[in-house]
Amino acid sequence: MKRIAVLTSGGDAPGMNAAIRSVVRTGLYHGLEVLGVRHGYQGLMEGDFIPLDSRSVAGVIHRGGTILYTARSERFKTLEGRDAALNQLRSGSVDGLVVIGGDGSYRGALKLAETGFPVVGIPGTIDNDIAGTDETIGYDSALNTALDSIRKLRDTASSHDRLFIVEVMGRESGFLALEVALASGAECVVLPETQFDECMICDQIHRAWDRKKDHFFIILAEGVMGAHELKARLEDTAGYTARFTVLGYLLRGGSPTCYDTNLATRMGSYSVEMLLDGHEGVMIGCVDHNMMINPLALAWEQKKQLNFDLLELMRIMNV
Amino acid sequence: MKRIAVLTSGGDAPGMNAAIRSVVRTGLYHGLEVLGVRHGYQGLMEGDFIPLDSRSVAGVIHRGGTILYTARSERFKTLEGRDAALNQLRSGSVDGLVVIGGDGSYRGALKLAETGFPVVGIPGTIDNDIAGTDETIGYDSALNTALDSIRKLRDTASSHDRLFIVEVMGRESGFLALEVALASGAECVVLPETQFDECMICDQIHRAWDRKKDHFFIILAEGVMGAHELKARLEDTAGYTARFTVLGYLLRGGSPTCYDTNLATRMGSYSVEMLLDGHEGVMIGCVDHNMMINPLALAWEQKKQLNFDLLELMRIMNV
Amino acid sequence: MKRIAVLTSGGDAPGMNAAIRSVVRTGLYHGLEVLGVRHGYQGLMEGDFIPLDSRSVAGVIHRGGTILYTARSERFKTLEGRDAALNQLRSGSVDGLVVIGGDGSYRGALKLAETGFPVVGIPGTIDNDIAGTDETIGYDSALNTALDSIRKLRDTASSHDRLFIVEVMGRESGFLALEVALASGAECVVLPETQFDECMICDQIHRAWDRKKDHFFIILAEGVMGAHELKARLEDTAGYTARFTVLGYLLRGGSPTCYDTNLATRMGSYSVEMLLDGHEGVMIGCVDHNMMINPLALAWEQKKQLNFDLLELMRIMNV
Amino acid sequence: MKRIAVLTSGGDAPGMNAAIRSVVRTGLYHGLEVLGVRHGYQGLMEGDFIPLDSRSVAGVIHRGGTILYTARSERFKTLEGRDAALNQLRSGSVDGLVVIGGDGSYRGALKLAETGFPVVGIPGTIDNDIAGTDETIGYDSALNTALDSIRKLRDTASSHDRLFIVEVMGRESGFLALEVALASGAECVVLPETQFDECMICDQIHRAWDRKKDHFFIILAEGVMGAHELKARLEDTAGYTARFTVLGYLLRGGSPTCYDTNLATRMGSYSVEMLLDGHEGVMIGCVDHNMMINPLALAWEQKKQLNFDLLELMRIMNV
Repeated sequence: MKRIAVLTSGGDAPGMNAAIRSVVRTGLYHGLEVLGVRHGYQGLMEGDFIPLDSRSVAGVIHRGGTILYTARSERFKTLEGRDAALNQLRSGSVDGLVVIGGDGSYRGALKLAETGFPVVGIPGTIDNDIAGTDETIGYDSALNTALDSIRKLRDTASSHDRLFIVEVMGRESGFLALEVALASGAECVVLPETQFDECMICDQIHRAWDRKKDHFFIILAEGVMGAHELKARLEDTAGYTARFTVLGYLLRGGSPTCYDTNLATRMGSYSVEMLLDGHEGVMIGCVDHNMMINPLALAWEQKKQLNFDLLELMRIMNV
Repeated sequence: MKRIAVLTSGGDAPGMNAAIRSVVRTGLYHGLEVLGVRHGYQGLMEGDFIPLDSRSVAGVIHRGGTILYTARSERFKTLEGRDAALNQLRSGSVDGLVVIGGDGSYRGALKLAETGFPVVGIPGTIDNDIAGTDETIGYDSALNTALDSIRKLRDTASSHDRLFIVEVMGRESGFLALEVALASGAECVVLPETQFDECMICDQIHRAWDRKKDHFFIILAEGVMGAHELKARLEDTAGYTARFTVLGYLLRGGSPTCYDTNLATRMGSYSVEMLLDGHEGVMIGCVDHNMMINPLALAWEQKKQLNFDLLELMRIMNV
Repeated sequence: MKRIAVLTSGGDAPGMNAAIRSVVRTGLYHGLEVLGVRHGYQGLMEGDFIPLDSRSVAGVIHRGGTILYTARSERFKTLEGRDAALNQLRSGSVDGLVVIGGDGSYRGALKLAETGFPVVGIPGTIDNDIAGTDETIGYDSALNTALDSIRKLRDTASSHDRLFIVEVMGRESGFLALEVALASGAECVVLPETQFDECMICDQIHRAWDRKKDHFFIILAEGVMGAHELKARLEDTAGYTARFTVLGYLLRGGSPTCYDTNLATRMGSYSVEMLLDGHEGVMIGCVDHNMMINPLALAWEQKKQLNFDLLELMRIMNV
Repeated sequence: MKRIAVLTSGGDAPGMNAAIRSVVRTGLYHGLEVLGVRHGYQGLMEGDFIPLDSRSVAGVIHRGGTILYTARSERFKTLEGRDAALNQLRSGSVDGLVVIGGDGSYRGALKLAETGFPVVGIPGTIDNDIAGTDETIGYDSALNTALDSIRKLRDTASSHDRLFIVEVMGRESGFLALEVALASGAECVVLPETQFDECMICDQIHRAWDRKKDHFFIILAEGVMGAHELKARLEDTAGYTARFTVLGYLLRGGSPTCYDTNLATRMGSYSVEMLLDGHEGVMIGCVDHNMMINPLALAWEQKKQLNFDLLELMRIMNV
């Protein structure tokens, strides 16, 4: 193996640049040349490659977003698209590829790997919805950004005796919503993993007002419904007036936390070592603090489990 | 004057607690007793008073929101409501009142003052839409919260070559939108004070894409339209796909900046001195760094002017 | 068990208030009365107890420091002191005690436990130097505060081509120094766990200047020496002029991160359950994401190991 | 005028990059070519020039430090040094120079201007110690960084009933110290502009402990003495044990606040206009929100006055 390439795909996440930097420097350390592929799979098909040396990744460790840009590509889902990508990789003399992204990105990566091309995946998404790793790169940063925002909203909610709905990202899973709900001291969380029960929520609100609480926060995972819809439902069912905020893309930005930065650095470095060790079609994971690999397909074949103990803890904290 | 009261009214703003603390301590310094009125004018009508000593306001200088709570009241707009308030003030032996809030709060304050009751207003709102003062308490904090958020959004927008709309508060005025647009390096700002011109915006976007810019930010003042509406219009007119974020209540929370904290401390202290000097029906302002007073009515009779030089500067910066 | 007490001891750490809140609310949930002991062991000996209900811990989850105050006590190290404490606990009808603090606090806790009084320890210290738990409460927050500070220093160091020494807390261990060194992209770290080698550092600096790096950061664990001493040594040995900053107490303040807040909530709740289950003389730990208990003595009998892989990673990143 | 150059000199300050960006883009807007001079006057003498186009300053508006690097130069204080600089400017066909820095930088700038070369100064320093402008670029950012740090220290100080000394930058003036002391609710401030009185400080501490305050903060301007010295003095005089923190270089880093970013943008743009209008040997100022110019020499000939009202306010707040 003499030359590897790295790309970012899907939604960006804080820490992606730290991962790119680590791939580059570990590659150089092992005597490899490293190319950056810009704009994800789209750039891969178009041969949008740039050489990366140690200086190219100086000063990026703490930056949000991705210096390689990211994109979603329909064409890469087709055989024709993947053939184009393989041609570009071959004509660029690339011997291995590191893909940083979420499970959508892994599906593409696996298709490439199945043709015999060495590909290693690194889990980068704020949603934490990838099995085979305790946390994905960006998750811890997004949690803290969400928490900071909710702490700000608490100031204003408390001053007005308000009912507040905060919608957070997470696609079909509730990792972000649950952890940030517990950490923000929210009164209620609405998750895709549990049955939605409007009456129970209204009942909780009712009891909270009875106990003279000066605010009531509902953290809503986007996978359940939109905040405006939940607001409408609470109004229809029980006449409650709620304010809402959609944190949305805010959660993807900002500098990575210490945890995410080091996770990204460790994963980036490990991915290069796995390529050098001859692994193909695997994704990097961090389980119980240790680096490990799993087949890429694990990312969608196994549903990662929420820690429901946290839900029980929330109930106790709202005693 | 032996006993004064202080209340917060309307939307909360960072720095209100610093202003309350300053009113209390300046009052004590001059040998006055100070009462806090909870829940704004509503609490005033209901006699929801609490005595405030130096310790009651310890540790609140940096807190967002208002420890006295705030509310909006329809009843206080009626003669009956204000009579109820006057009765409560008299039966509580209150000799003067400090009202911290926006221009809506001042209308009520003026009605009270017209009955001969000494009232002084302090401008507290993130919107900065009050004439007679260069800045209102909370404005600088909201600017920085908005700027931090937009800097986060830039990370993700740049990574995706995206068109982004960010809606900020400001009611009928564009102070927040304009200053934060310039400071964030946004490509475009949409203000209530200027003519809305869809085609010009589309034209700007078009030229930016031509120059290979990797993102395009539009800062939208809420007073013009909602972000979803602007998004729809850009799509209809020119087929542009935009993402949007509504910063909303986020901007009201968080610790006040250094500027807001000191502005609040100065205004709070000056308000007590103005009451002691026998002024009635005035609002405190800070003009060219100096404390001054103006009639309360100035807040709505005079429209505060945007600094249009900043708009011209934005144009130059997007050369 | 009908009534329990909780205290904080030793240096404060972000998340202590979240732990207190969790002890209180979990106690109430299980029908217990909960007392707060103020000023650590000193207050314990003096009977400085206050009843804590659910409202007493409202609004404290995100606050730095400890609402119960903390202190160090020489008297409690004596038999007489501990007898005084036991008398206060008995006369206050307290049936169990939760001690939040570091290993110094545990020594006292164990002495109490050895008399038969039920005590459970919760590891709260930014130093992370307690075996039996992957992380202590406050460690993740301190890491992020340190990282934010170093990112700020980087701005100014880069602008001046500067050699910078940053001293961080950690007592006799290098957890904070090592993790933050890796995350900040520092060029060098000086740890108590490794041999100090001045010449090697000078050599690294020399090579960095050769490669035209525009700054060089040394992260120094306080357990090795003071920053001023390292600065003097580098000057004497190789004539290098360094600037230095001592982060010190800054690292103890601020709101806890999401991770620390939830760790504190989990540990606080688990400590009450362990008391109810009849455990005595144990400390709570979080190992591989699971709550567990260990004998208190583990905290000082077993030396917690640094992850030396991170040191190797730093070397690779500085390729 | 066809080509201008811009440099940063002296200590860096948040907002310098925003000023550079504004100089560049305003220059381009008016059809000028713009060169960046690296490493301040040293680079000027060595001809270390780089062409700057609109893209070169993309993405720098929010970054701390200075992309042009800064340095102090003894050689430029000599006639020989300035001749070398003039030769470089002439051989580079540069028709005007913008110098961003503090008063030390202006002395050099004036010497250049006296030879007939058009120079305009922009006040960039966190110390705010330059007459002719209400605020310098970086001052507002440094205030907020200092305030954030002191808020963190308060957490730990309050938890331990502690006496804390915080040393802040400011060279020979107390602007930073005074404003941040008021905003942080500090009990005491020690300024170069007032008589140092140890006994009065001890007396204040004594009275605070009597009133059961749980912490006592002294904000110390570096121009008076070092924090370790003040600590020693309080110990010798009255036996008080104090902790101290030196904020130092931290205050120079971080992203500029909204205020500083816009001040820098306005000043940068105005400096180019002044060059085009034929002004020489002037510095830009912002007085009562308006851009204006003054002779460079004003910076050191006139001593900028502290607002002593704030000192009086501190006394009232500590009632």
